[in-house]
Amino acid sequence: MFSIVRVNMTDLSVKHEAVPEAYQGLGGRGLTSTIVAREVNPGCSPIGPNNKLIIAPGLLGGTNCANSGRISVGGKSPLTGGIKEANSGGQAGQYLARLGIAAIVVEGQPPQDKLFKLFLSKDHAEISPADELTGKGNYDTVDRLKDEFGVDCGYITVGQAGEWKLSGASVAFTDRELRPTRHAGRGGLGAVMGSKGLKAIVVDPAGGESAPIVDKDAFKAAAKRFAKALQDHPVTSQGLPTYGTDILINIINEAGGLPTRNFSAGRFEGADKVGGETLHKITVERKGDPTHGCMRGCIINCSGIYVDQKGGYVSKWPEYETVWALGPNCGIDDLDAIARMDRACDDFGVDTIEMGAAIGVAMEGGLKAFGDAAGAEEILSQVGKGTPLGRLIGSGAGAVGRAFGVSRIPVVKNQALPAYDPRAVKGQGVTYATSPMGADHTAGYAVATNIMKVGGYVDPLVPEGQGKLSGDLQTATAFIDTAGLCLFVAFPVLDNPDAFTAVVDMVNAKYGLSLTGDDIGALGQKILGIEQDFNVQAGMGKAADRLPEFFTTEKLPPHNQVFDVPEAELDSVLLFK
Amino acid sequence: MFSIVRVNMTDLSVKHEAVPEAYQGLGGRGLTSTIVAREVNPGCSPIGPNNKLIIAPGLLGGTNCANSGRISVGGKSPLTGGIKEANSGGQAGQYLARLGIAAIVVEGQPPQDKLFKLFLSKDHAEISPADELTGKGNYDTVDRLKDEFGVDCGYITVGQAGEWKLSGASVAFTDRELRPTRHAGRGGLGAVMGSKGLKAIVVDPAGGESAPIVDKDAFKAAAKRFAKALQDHPVTSQGLPTYGTDILINIINEAGGLPTRNFSAGRFEGADKVGGETLHKITVERKGDPTHGCMRGCIINCSGIYVDQKGGYVSKWPEYETVWALGPNCGIDDLDAIARMDRACDDFGVDTIEMGAAIGVAMEGGLKAFGDAAGAEEILSQVGKGTPLGRLIGSGAGAVGRAFGVSRIPVVKNQALPAYDPRAVKGQGVTYATSPMGADHTAGYAVATNIMKVGGYVDPLVPEGQGKLSGDLQTATAFIDTAGLCLFVAFPVLDNPDAFTAVVDMVNAKYGLSLTGDDIGALGQKILGIEQDFNVQAGMGKAADRLPEFFTTEKLPPHNQVFDVPEAELDSVLLFK
Repeated sequence: MFSIVRVNMTDLSVKHEAVPEAYQGLGGRGLTSTIVAREVNPGCSPIGPNNKLIIAPGLLGGTNCANSGRISVGGKSPLTGGIKEANSGGQAGQYLARLGIAAIVVEGQPPQDKLFKLFLSKDHAEISPADELTGKGNYDTVDRLKDEFGVDCGYITVGQAGEWKLSGASVAFTDRELRPTRHAGRGGLGAVMGSKGLKAIVVDPAGGESAPIVDKDAFKAAAKRFAKALQDHPVTSQGLPTYGTDILINIINEAGGLPTRNFSAGRFEGADKVGGETLHKITVERKGDPTHGCMRGCIINCSGIYVDQKGGYVSKWPEYETVWALGPNCGIDDLDAIARMDRACDDFGVDTIEMGAAIGVAMEGGLKAFGDAAGAEEILSQVGKGTPLGRLIGSGAGAVGRAFGVSRIPVVKNQALPAYDPRAVKGQGVTYATSPMGADHTAGYAVATNIMKVGGYVDPLVPEGQGKLSGDLQTATAFIDTAGLCLFVAFPVLDNPDAFTAVVDMVNAKYGLSLTGDDIGALGQKILGIEQDFNVQAGMGKAADRLPEFFTTEKLPPHNQVFDVPEAELDSVLLFK
Repeated sequence: MFSIVRVNMTDLSVKHEAVPEAYQGLGGRGLTSTIVAREVNPGCSPIGPNNKLIIAPGLLGGTNCANSGRISVGGKSPLTGGIKEANSGGQAGQYLARLGIAAIVVEGQPPQDKLFKLFLSKDHAEISPADELTGKGNYDTVDRLKDEFGVDCGYITVGQAGEWKLSGASVAFTDRELRPTRHAGRGGLGAVMGSKGLKAIVVDPAGGESAPIVDKDAFKAAAKRFAKALQDHPVTSQGLPTYGTDILINIINEAGGLPTRNFSAGRFEGADKVGGETLHKITVERKGDPTHGCMRGCIINCSGIYVDQKGGYVSKWPEYETVWALGPNCGIDDLDAIARMDRACDDFGVDTIEMGAAIGVAMEGGLKAFGDAAGAEEILSQVGKGTPLGRLIGSGAGAVGRAFGVSRIPVVKNQALPAYDPRAVKGQGVTYATSPMGADHTAGYAVATNIMKVGGYVDPLVPEGQGKLSGDLQTATAFIDTAGLCLFVAFPVLDNPDAFTAVVDMVNAKYGLSLTGDDIGALGQKILGIEQDFNVQAGMGKAADRLPEFFTTEKLPPHNQVFDVPEAELDSVLLFK
């Protein structure tokens, strides 16, 4: 009943095929990575005709399991040159699952400079020209698509950055208000979509049905236990709903791990001015919305709506990593400027983490001074204009650092490190170094255990134990990303054994399986193994799984620590499959 | 009697040390690569304090062996991220050898934005401020240094590109007329020198002596045989002296392997207008100098002086690869424009191959039209101005391609392919793919055997036999680069067994050794092994030893061939050491 939608952009054809055996029982990241590994030549040009763009809801997508609407995007990354999965909230995950679509696989390439849109509904699939959307940002693009297709569809789009195939380009997904605020941000997959000439995918869910479930009663019972676990855990029931992910600013700053001015310090004097408490306060004062879900079925509601002093919409609440990237990392303590830059990134269709890191590196290279918010906005505006500087910034922190002669470039596999300094949160450093995705905080969120003492406690400042912590988390995360669950379910899952059991029970009930916890772990490791293998075939040796030198040689105040997890321990994390 | 000069730029000290045992019996590339492998952490930032810049004359430097004055520059490459040796003609190789200096090793890093110059003479070594040279091009820099140090010194300098640490930056060496026309161009070693705050090295040869020779009579006899072999071979005695290396334009064009308009065709309709025959004719007409050596002791004299219509100096004769890069590769058939760009590259201190490739990629990305010579000059001029576009171009073809969304990027290990299309000269393609240096024509010049039928003949269009051809040539070249010999001695060496024996005899006579031909081969393989191992430790897997995808999928006119040497054969070339 599930199908793969093959979209051939060379001959502009669409066909549905039954899910091949090799892809059955997979969803989300497990499915995107498996398809990439089996169908994409690791040596191909990421923006050439032989790369593929895969979009897949998770295993639990289309059900009423809480927070199960994440959607995975996969392909060979223009940024890292390796395999990539980036996932997003928004509406499209649930809509695709309800249409019975296990994955969209976009292949080939049309003649240059031609743009198209793809429409998918229960009974229809069509590719049509979209030249009228050329050069439009995501906001404008979605507004025009809404006029054509209505307000009940989900929209998957790229902005200018995707059209121009910049390595920092994201794939945007509309939220419940039909704003393009949710992004598969990391690794430049928007450039892959742009390279296919695909400006937009319109998903009309009309007539779609809840995903079929083999044992409905068992599923319902497990879903209830899972929802209760989310509602019982203080992080998912109190911290995140009230302050959003930006609650982490003061926590990570206190821990001395908030990378400041391009990773030259671990505490920022202006942290509180941009933290979640201030974000909440400003939002309430200005009558914005401080508690808001990014997708249907969310019961955490960690997002919000950021408004300006007159109450006008600016952006969704910028995530913690966005606030960090465009704030403390650039020495900036102005939330209004940060929110405007968040909006600009969403509009141009670029990853906020990569852009903040790129601007921070440019500041270190002398382009503007740290703390110059107007200067940062000016730099970022170039991305949407496509000037040489804009193309450089849009290509990410590594590109900028090399062009501006900066030796402190915070990237692994050319992808920028997010908002946790690996010298102060060493488990996270292991994840950055060893994840097949490049530096990615979501790939194995050791911050939970290092800092928040969720799922036990491993001292963030000692080298011991970080390899096992990161490896276990990476394994679990590969499964969570496959299930289509929001990563924040990890908080109850790590602390409450029944929350994990409930997830396994739901998968079993939906598919008529009898997977055990061990099976789930094996699946996570299998996915990681597939991803690592692709990277090896793409030319990466194991010494590509390292942090940049400066983390091991420059001490980070205030703890004055370097990253000192032994290389052998890093290598041990790599032995998946 | 030979010493290593250790230059510490952190504390601005210079000390001479005896050549350690591990470095004895090595020179040129063998020495630079050995020092880099033993002393540089492969994970270091190429422009940080822990990289080192090594400058070493060859084993036969300082003798009266013909064409033995090449000088090697080594370090971790800012362009490839791997090990790098680039060598150059000019005067400094002979001068250093005559001062008894086996290598200069530049270490550490001074406070940012401070520039220094290093003076070396028989009895004196001194580092002094060079702030007055900030932002100066190589021509201006050398003019000022000449005023200070006189016309009898050799000058090793970086232009703006080196100061700004651009990945395409070269290290310049003055020629016999004290012009900065000879460059260790490839791999961005100028950025390493710039990152050390070292604007110039002044080598005063006064009081230096011919290198000591253990068996003078044997040396003299072998040197004579070697010189005769150079004088007897038609390439080194007729072709190169008359037309320069640019004689290759029509030869490679005829062979269908002249990469045209960013590697989209193998023949250029304007080839003859930029070939060696035209270069010679114009030079004679304008009363330039058509036969000119780049260094003392050269008996080939393949260079010349390019003058404008009024007879004014423009540049040295641009080499074949330069003419190709800034000419046919950009669709340009204007020799005057090419010579001006050659001069600009020498002045800014950037690799002509990398710049031509970068401009070609930018043209494919739509920045200017192919064939627009004024446009190309305008783009190149940005490099010397340090604008964002200039920094991008100066960072090389890979950086430009990624920023401009181009999928046909002709680089291996991020270094641009030189002037021989691997689909039409397949042995050369193996060298590009597998050399530890990245795409480098000099690393194993299969063109000689594929096209010029020197050293036998292997059909350039068949995949068979190219691995062995390239592997043998890479091994021999590693030794030639260690000896400090001009690569063009390879023509007689490949055709005339006694020329090779004469080289071995000279090394034996000079050092009192009894090396055999097999020992020389083993030395070449050992050097390659050291280099490959460094790259592995720097994160490169064996799948990094591949050509970009488009060479295997896009057919090159006129032969309509793809690069089809099997991957297993590429891998077999890697098994050195």
